[in-house]
Amino acid sequence: MAKEPKQLDALFHDTLKDIYFAEKKILTALPKMAKAAQAEELRAAFEKHESETEGHVERLEQVFELIGKKPQGKTCEAILGLIEEGQEIMKEYKGSPALDSGLLAAAQAVEHYEISRYGTLKTWAEELGLDQAAALLEATLQEEKATDETLTEIAESVVNREARSAA
Amino acid sequence: MAKEPKQLDALFHDTLKDIYFAEKKILTALPKMAKAAQAEELRAAFEKHESETEGHVERLEQVFELIGKKPQGKTCEAILGLIEEGQEIMKEYKGSPALDSGLLAAAQAVEHYEISRYGTLKTWAEELGLDQAAALLEATLQEEKATDETLTEIAESVVNREARSAA
Repeated sequence: MAKEPKQLDALFHDTLKDIYFAEKKILTALPKMAKAAQAEELRAAFEKHESETEGHVERLEQVFELIGKKPQGKTCEAILGLIEEGQEIMKEYKGSPALDSGLLAAAQAVEHYEISRYGTLKTWAEELGLDQAAALLEATLQEEKATDETLTEIAESVVNREARSAA
Repeated sequence: MAKEPKQLDALFHDTLKDIYFAEKKILTALPKMAKAAQAEELRAAFEKHESETEGHVERLEQVFELIGKKPQGKTCEAILGLIEEGQEIMKEYKGSPALDSGLLAAAQAVEHYEISRYGTLKTWAEELGLDQAAALLEATLQEEKATDETLTEIAESVVNREARSAA
């Protein structure tokens, strides 16, 4: 018998593993970014997001449970690349007044990756009739969007301050 | 004399090289995604975005010119990871009714990467007094956001159709 092609439920499960891996990587990156941040408001934003991210991991574990699967990550090349870019910034801009702007750019690229993933997963959960999972994914999606907006506000005030200190 | 730390203008230039590299990679990926797409509207959206992306590359070249630099890319690990994820989808879901949903997810992750990069670059261009560059970056940012919205609409209709065909 020919192997059946994978369906939407398999794609949902694969993508869930991808974002579960990503969230765990983000959890290890955020304390380093908080430590490197120069502006107090940026450090505080990274710390707040770290505790939110712990909640996101828990929600994902609930979604795995809802589909009867064990929580499991799958290497996500995209998040590895995004985090590597953040680490390069920390190295290349150490001691520079532009460091915080670089950290913000790296963090917002990560947020946008998550926003796209949670948006996609929520649409698929609805289609698969997984209403409880869709609600959990929507809750995290809203937090990621709010974090991105906060980072945009900080970016605008930080970049002004840096420009003044560099003048 | 100690080496001066890099400033915001250097960060702007570095990030410009990053997205220039990314746009050129996207230009090579889009025809493959269009060829793989099953739904006609998705194929058309990828083709339209390919021609828009050519315009984005040209705008970036104008921005390089405005800051007196030669257009040059710099390896962007994030986009390589994002494109690799799209290629995995094409391989793993070939012949599956879920293929288009997977292609859409990969494309939206790329769009969000670009949205974050252009948003950041625009903020920095404004701060650096590069008004003409800021306008060019804003024009591309709006096109990326519009593409993401179009892809969301297609995703919702495609996922419904897939579910019916798989039933």
